Amino acid sequence: MAATSTNVSAITDLMNRFYDINALRSALASFEWDQQVLMPQGGASARAEHIGILSRMEHDLVTDDTTRTLIERAAGAAETDDERALVRITKREYDIATKIPTSLVAEKSRLGAIAHESWVKARANNDYKSFAPQLKRMFEIVKEEADALGWKNHPYDALTDQYEEGATHADWTRMFEGLKSKQIELVRRIAEKPTIDDSAFYGNWDLNAQRKFGNMLVQAIGFDMDRGRQDEAAHPFCSGWSVGDVRLTTRYKDYLPSGIFGSLHEAGHGMYEQGSPMAWDRSPLAGGVSLGIHESQSRTWENIVGRSRGFWKFFGPKLRETFPGLKLSGEEFYRAINKVEPSFIRVEADEVTYNLHVLVRFEIESEMLTGKLTVEDLPEAWNAKYTEYLGITPKTYSEGCLQDVHWSMGSIGYFPTYTMGNLLSYQIWNVLEKDLGDTASMIESGNFKPILNWLQEKVYSQGKKYPPKELVMRVTGKPVGAEDYLEGLTKKYTEIYSL
Amino acid sequence: MAATSTNVSAITDLMNRFYDINALRSALASFEWDQQVLMPQGGASARAEHIGILSRMEHDLVTDDTTRTLIERAAGAAETDDERALVRITKREYDIATKIPTSLVAEKSRLGAIAHESWVKARANNDYKSFAPQLKRMFEIVKEEADALGWKNHPYDALTDQYEEGATHADWTRMFEGLKSKQIELVRRIAEKPTIDDSAFYGNWDLNAQRKFGNMLVQAIGFDMDRGRQDEAAHPFCSGWSVGDVRLTTRYKDYLPSGIFGSLHEAGHGMYEQGSPMAWDRSPLAGGVSLGIHESQSRTWENIVGRSRGFWKFFGPKLRETFPGLKLSGEEFYRAINKVEPSFIRVEADEVTYNLHVLVRFEIESEMLTGKLTVEDLPEAWNAKYTEYLGITPKTYSEGCLQDVHWSMGSIGYFPTYTMGNLLSYQIWNVLEKDLGDTASMIESGNFKPILNWLQEKVYSQGKKYPPKELVMRVTGKPVGAEDYLEGLTKKYTEIYSL
Repeated sequence: MAATSTNVSAITDLMNRFYDINALRSALASFEWDQQVLMPQGGASARAEHIGILSRMEHDLVTDDTTRTLIERAAGAAETDDERALVRITKREYDIATKIPTSLVAEKSRLGAIAHESWVKARANNDYKSFAPQLKRMFEIVKEEADALGWKNHPYDALTDQYEEGATHADWTRMFEGLKSKQIELVRRIAEKPTIDDSAFYGNWDLNAQRKFGNMLVQAIGFDMDRGRQDEAAHPFCSGWSVGDVRLTTRYKDYLPSGIFGSLHEAGHGMYEQGSPMAWDRSPLAGGVSLGIHESQSRTWENIVGRSRGFWKFFGPKLRETFPGLKLSGEEFYRAINKVEPSFIRVEADEVTYNLHVLVRFEIESEMLTGKLTVEDLPEAWNAKYTEYLGITPKTYSEGCLQDVHWSMGSIGYFPTYTMGNLLSYQIWNVLEKDLGDTASMIESGNFKPILNWLQEKVYSQGKKYPPKELVMRVTGKPVGAEDYLEGLTKKYTEIYSL
Repeated sequence: MAATSTNVSAITDLMNRFYDINALRSALASFEWDQQVLMPQGGASARAEHIGILSRMEHDLVTDDTTRTLIERAAGAAETDDERALVRITKREYDIATKIPTSLVAEKSRLGAIAHESWVKARANNDYKSFAPQLKRMFEIVKEEADALGWKNHPYDALTDQYEEGATHADWTRMFEGLKSKQIELVRRIAEKPTIDDSAFYGNWDLNAQRKFGNMLVQAIGFDMDRGRQDEAAHPFCSGWSVGDVRLTTRYKDYLPSGIFGSLHEAGHGMYEQGSPMAWDRSPLAGGVSLGIHESQSRTWENIVGRSRGFWKFFGPKLRETFPGLKLSGEEFYRAINKVEPSFIRVEADEVTYNLHVLVRFEIESEMLTGKLTVEDLPEAWNAKYTEYLGITPKTYSEGCLQDVHWSMGSIGYFPTYTMGNLLSYQIWNVLEKDLGDTASMIESGNFKPILNWLQEKVYSQGKKYPPKELVMRVTGKPVGAEDYLEGLTKKYTEIYSL
């Protein structure tokens, strides 16, 4: 059936509506990026007001009755796959935004500000008790949010769906069940082996040399600097406000691998964002489809490519030339960048222990939401899990359950997407390797193009067109699971640690 | 009479409306700043769309019936000077934005895009004829704009008022009449003297050293880096989106004074913006009140302070230490930074010849608007004026009437604000000197605080509270005139050139 002009107009009208919404979101993203990267301290209070006002405008536009009408009209007019995707994505956004009462959003925002301040003090003073009342209230509010969004089997379903469309508590439970015992076992076996000495990585490394080296790497793997930038921020992230303008941020430390693998990680996110078709630019179809799939791409370039032997066979000479003070090379270097060591701090965890940090949080969040665990018993539960899964026990609240900022903000339900990313990176890589053959040789010769092109075609160019579960099926032929990851990790670390 | 709650609410409602408008304007300013300073080329097309959409939203908010109602209600409720100023400023914005028909705005914008492209080609090819039809149409549109805004004595009145509230064609005519013959005479007398050799300023100066030196200067005179930044741009400007976040940009060239005086110039604009009371932040009362008064402040710091003998007595040693290759010091240096030389290019003109460039444009714009001059005769008129006022005749259209970008964009009526700035800088300085006494000693000892404090109190802290003409009266006791400027310039250059 040929497209009628009414149908065309219904689609165009909806698209235009979301171009307007996108302009406000881009302004917000730009303001938030600037705040982390450039803003002088004197700009903070006005910036908060500007962000508050533009957020309200954006929310008003998304939840407006006109938007609902435009979606309904477009739903009746959609004829192509892209048009149906547009309707699906915008309807989902409208539904999520309208289901949560404005009063609840406001209360969460107010409590978030108070709880954040309380958390900062609590962590500094190792004083869980002073933070507990706010945390308790935050979990109540988040539960109300879940109820407003609607759920059948577990309140977690409603919350996690906001970060990973379609994911449920049952999905995450299955994912961790396939992983848990073997991951704990792997960590335990490694912990029995002699520790790897990576002290050579600590030094007073020249900042400019680190910047140049990190940027050389992100360009070498394929991040396009004509359509992006790399700057610095205390808490590194990837942002962007169009397919042709993607911003990486990195933090360089006296621990040399920090800036190197941080650059590769954010470039993985960045290349995914740069990979959407230009025709979709500014539309709801452009960009990475979910947190879990986004993380799979950052982990692919950081860990599978970046922490491989071949990668440093190629870049090692350049690294030693840039940092002559670094007294590590060859096999020693490879072992040092893959050192595994249970620690209390998630954000600094290696790729083997990382998922166990996530597991602790997932289990605690789940039980808090159903009332199985109380805020009073949380610290004890936290410590017990660290002891059981990682073999170490926090000595303070601050290095225990007070470490993450997210609960104070009410961000419940997104931690499992990190583990999904880790698992999926290996799962996708196995398909890629079947298609491309000897990827090790490609990496060893600095030839990343075939790898990028494959990911570009299978993942990046798909933007948000398919729901994440469908995209995973299309690319790998199965749902996210732990097998490929466990197999890859076991092989790699059996060799490194002579297990 | 005590403020009633209805009155308070009428003022608050209007203020909130303009806080929303301010948030959109800040996003626009931030996007435009980023575009000049940081944006990768790939971001250009989406950026143009984002700016277009946010501009439309901003225009819709300003011209909305609700805004009119809010202004009317506030007009009846205003009790304090600040509240009356709020009503006056917002009413003026509403009036200007609603008087020009949307269709005319759209046509000007469309033609502007085409004319700009045509102008770029015409200048490159020295081909005035290909640009003439667009220029003709642009002047017609601008005349329609003037008619829509309304004027009594000259269409220029309506146009120039947008840049300099209350200024009229008669004002500018009077201003230039007081200036013209004496300015031409001064330039002519200097041209008869031996030229000053400033060739030592050209060199391959280290970029980082230039950046550091320029930034040291702007901080020394009082630009607050906790509430601002200094970055680089091909066409330097000052922007900002709150009193606590003001952004300077500078261009560093192989001509050393470029970055130095460019830094001081933009810092003059920047300190004016930083000087609004924090209580007015994001409100229509904050910021510089007009282009002319803004320029008076940039010129004060660039020329009166920055090109003085004392300034370099203080900063000279630091300059020579930073740029050991610079073989100029003392009196030679002072003469070289004050070199006067008639040239064709306005943006590179010295402080003595600058106003004559402006005069040429003012006279041509005026005659074009009344039909006294046609687009066909424009190049000849241009050249005749350059010959008469500056003693030099452009050999090509490109170095003649095609040099400025502004006419292609339809920015007619704002050039005279540059001259107003030049004149007013001396006029204000004379009052400042009467109040403070020996400013030369202050400058010579690097003590800029009394000067900044005085300007802060008299000018910067007033924000947009008073219309520019009233502010000039309040600060200097008379309207903008040429006497102080001519007196100051004659004294300075009589000595430099032994006239």
